[in-house]
Amino acid sequence: MSDTPRIAPPRRGPYANTARRKAEIVAAAASVFMRSGYRGGSLREIARDLELSFTSVKHHFPTKEHLLIAVLEEYDSLETEQLNRDIALLGVVDAAIALAVRNLDKPETERLLAVMSAEASSSDHPAHEWFVRRYENIRNSMAAGIRTASEAEAIPFVADADFVASAFVALWDGLQLQWLIDPRFDMIDRLRRGFEAILREGSR
Amino acid sequence: MSDTPRIAPPRRGPYANTARRKAEIVAAAASVFMRSGYRGGSLREIARDLELSFTSVKHHFPTKEHLLIAVLEEYDSLETEQLNRDIALLGVVDAAIALAVRNLDKPETERLLAVMSAEASSSDHPAHEWFVRRYENIRNSMAAGIRTASEAEAIPFVADADFVASAFVALWDGLQLQWLIDPRFDMIDRLRRGFEAILREGSR
Repeated sequence: MSDTPRIAPPRRGPYANTARRKAEIVAAAASVFMRSGYRGGSLREIARDLELSFTSVKHHFPTKEHLLIAVLEEYDSLETEQLNRDIALLGVVDAAIALAVRNLDKPETERLLAVMSAEASSSDHPAHEWFVRRYENIRNSMAAGIRTASEAEAIPFVADADFVASAFVALWDGLQLQWLIDPRFDMIDRLRRGFEAILREGSR
Repeated sequence: MSDTPRIAPPRRGPYANTARRKAEIVAAAASVFMRSGYRGGSLREIARDLELSFTSVKHHFPTKEHLLIAVLEEYDSLETEQLNRDIALLGVVDAAIALAVRNLDKPETERLLAVMSAEASSSDHPAHEWFVRRYENIRNSMAAGIRTASEAEAIPFVADADFVASAFVALWDGLQLQWLIDPRFDMIDRLRRGFEAILREGSR
């Protein structure tokens, strides 16, 4: 043991700088992908937005795909945290509806996710394994949120949280696709009725 | 009025030849898109398969997109006819499940449709208007099938066939996406429970 304690303080030193730089790049990439689309956006445009060298961006994220995955991970983790907090406060249906209403403001993010999920369903797609885990994580995390709230009696008893989670995600993806295709399609009312039906089925 | 009746006999003459040729090209295109994917498939490959000139294929279908739309129209119209026949015979849930089970054999077709639907949701995509109509047609045709069977008392009374149709399509697209991403995901059991829940909600 050295007499100089080597416990790295959080948010200082070169690792913290790397983490902060990566977070800046991820935030800039999210804006660029929203503005120019995933195909239209480029690592060069992201570097320009941040006044960073192209080489520096490439150092942290070797390809545009690495960066997209970082953007999606950030996005998913924020959404999942908020959703699971809301489930205990508002109940499963109102929590999910609140998130769906927030997403009405960002059709381009949702469209990007819909296209990527479908493309990456091919087992030879470079992001395939990541999307397999992404859907597992979303289902498992939502099911865990439902089970925890149900066991704490914050919401009425749910017998089959796994069924409810996978059917919620499916109905949501599907109604959202119909809304992305035709924004006149009212997804929120249908989503609420569908969620309530699925929750009743999962609580029998 | 001429004394020579000008009623064109069906399936003869140059128009019938055109229709037959177009149908052949559509069938060949469906095989090529299944084999090579939509991006990988080309009008040249389709022409080669049919031993036709490239010019002849281009004469009937100026772009690959025209041909894809013809393939999807053929595919949808066959599916819709069969589904609506089955609804009166088997009931709404069993009819939809029978179709979903048939589709388990053609993941590549379903994947192509999932990618295309998401891409074409952008209002600047060349096939956008076609996909807007496609989803309207699928919902309307399924709702009409349910209403007809319900009014004929072939199935129990359904109060809101429009809700049932749009939620069925959504749950189906969504569970199918989860299955396309991970073929170990059992979509059929979840689809049946979800369909039954939605049908109960639409029958209240």
